[in-house]
Amino acid sequence: MSLVVVGSVAYDGVETPYGRRERMLGGACTYVALAASYFTQVGVVGVVGDDFDPADRRLLEEHGIDLGGLEHAPGKTFYWSGVYSEDMNDRVTLRTELNVFADFRPELPAHYRSQPYLFLANIQPALQRRVQSQMSAPRLVGGDTMNYWIENRREELIETLAGWDVLLINDSEARLLSGERNLRRAAERIRAMGPKILVIKRGEYGALLFADDGAFAAPAYLLDSVRDPTGAGDCFAGGFFGYLAEQGVDPGAGPIEPRLLRRAVIYGSVMGSFCCEQFGVDRFRTLTRAEIDARFQEFKALTEF
Amino acid sequence: MSLVVVGSVAYDGVETPYGRRERMLGGACTYVALAASYFTQVGVVGVVGDDFDPADRRLLEEHGIDLGGLEHAPGKTFYWSGVYSEDMNDRVTLRTELNVFADFRPELPAHYRSQPYLFLANIQPALQRRVQSQMSAPRLVGGDTMNYWIENRREELIETLAGWDVLLINDSEARLLSGERNLRRAAERIRAMGPKILVIKRGEYGALLFADDGAFAAPAYLLDSVRDPTGAGDCFAGGFFGYLAEQGVDPGAGPIEPRLLRRAVIYGSVMGSFCCEQFGVDRFRTLTRAEIDARFQEFKALTEF
Repeated sequence: MSLVVVGSVAYDGVETPYGRRERMLGGACTYVALAASYFTQVGVVGVVGDDFDPADRRLLEEHGIDLGGLEHAPGKTFYWSGVYSEDMNDRVTLRTELNVFADFRPELPAHYRSQPYLFLANIQPALQRRVQSQMSAPRLVGGDTMNYWIENRREELIETLAGWDVLLINDSEARLLSGERNLRRAAERIRAMGPKILVIKRGEYGALLFADDGAFAAPAYLLDSVRDPTGAGDCFAGGFFGYLAEQGVDPGAGPIEPRLLRRAVIYGSVMGSFCCEQFGVDRFRTLTRAEIDARFQEFKALTEF
Repeated sequence: MSLVVVGSVAYDGVETPYGRRERMLGGACTYVALAASYFTQVGVVGVVGDDFDPADRRLLEEHGIDLGGLEHAPGKTFYWSGVYSEDMNDRVTLRTELNVFADFRPELPAHYRSQPYLFLANIQPALQRRVQSQMSAPRLVGGDTMNYWIENRREELIETLAGWDVLLINDSEARLLSGERNLRRAAERIRAMGPKILVIKRGEYGALLFADDGAFAAPAYLLDSVRDPTGAGDCFAGGFFGYLAEQGVDPGAGPIEPRLLRRAVIYGSVMGSFCCEQFGVDRFRTLTRAEIDARFQEFKALTEF
């Protein structure tokens, strides 16, 4: 194993203009781990209930994901459901049932603690910090957050962020966190809070990277159809962080090569685009590394001038 | 002269979070011509009233723009005013006074008719066609349009478009024109209507090019501050078309080199970004070609991986 991912493992009910699924495997940790598993060995930290389907467990295992940190608790797995707008740029949450996730107190198995890479998917900042404190000396720590924590746990979040190398958030979260509408200025403020590598995800408009060598802009892949955008941002994070783990980056030993960070953004975009092609995690049932690398090359063709 | 530009020459009243101008030089033709003038010799076709300020005339002349096609009519110059939202992604029109523009019947001076490049900025499609019919045999014809014509003069617009090589529109217009939400599919439909070179402008998210060699995605430049976005899309068109004119492209003699089209998109983005830095056309009072080429290089740094 190389990369520890902590976050929610969930069942999702989703409706998009392409159809409806009552209950499918989801959760940020699941998406990050599956996407990252194409690049590096992943171990997850999360909690599921009695209703967790052995078939879903097998899907993760088939991707070589270590489930030693996936706690089984009495009760039901976290459940979320929502409906996307016609253009899929908005979604309305119908139900959020925290269930076993409400009392989640992550405890890392011994063999997780010495791993070099740690990704903290969106959960309460205090829990993210708790996980980080259990790691002995990770080389690279990254995470995500959301508007709820920015608005309601601002101090706790800012203390947590201060210990990260990488922050991946979307553009509205970047604006909310920094208090700046202009993204270049927002990035300056956020990088001053701690994470020197900032990725701002913009959905169908691509992503921006701000790092020591300046800014990098990547477009989103131009899909013929987006069936279900659920999890795309988490798959971006998984591709980004998984690629950096695969490359063995170690900022403690010297600056990360700028080209690696830029390529990580492209691999993030690639993984986000595959995620949208089918409902939930379905695309990852058949996706191969060769398809991923072919799409990476398509990004070259899409952006070279 | 090399490039003929037809469209509105106007006075604009604009309010943005950065300030307010009661009356400043504007109009699509003005912006396109000024931006294109950094690349090639431009002649404009338009109409102004008795109130047209000699200082504004001089600004255009100082950019080497031929005003032989700028008709002076009794009455007032076209006037538009609007207010931008706090984030500048929306604007509300306060007043639109067509004035002398209402009876605009463009008539090209003899020396315009044999020019190789023609750009038809947003005006009624029938007028665009009238201008095109007065040209003897332009090498490359491009144009812009807007939601009003797509919704209210659809047949007239589609007949007009059929004779163009290049269409530059924004993303909502592309969706409206094609009836397709997905931009890749929208582009296929629009290219089947005539213009084989389609540029979809996305404001702060950059631009997409669809041509025979596939798609190209360019980000927008990351400005520290946008003072006034008025005219940015027209400046994009001016940079794009001006660069192609400078390069002497001639699709009649063989396919345009894909790299030239992609670079034209970047020059379009460069000119759009400069436009936003100051109110109205003010940035063009001091802008130099060296600054333009330096920003082109910044786009390389922003996108290479």
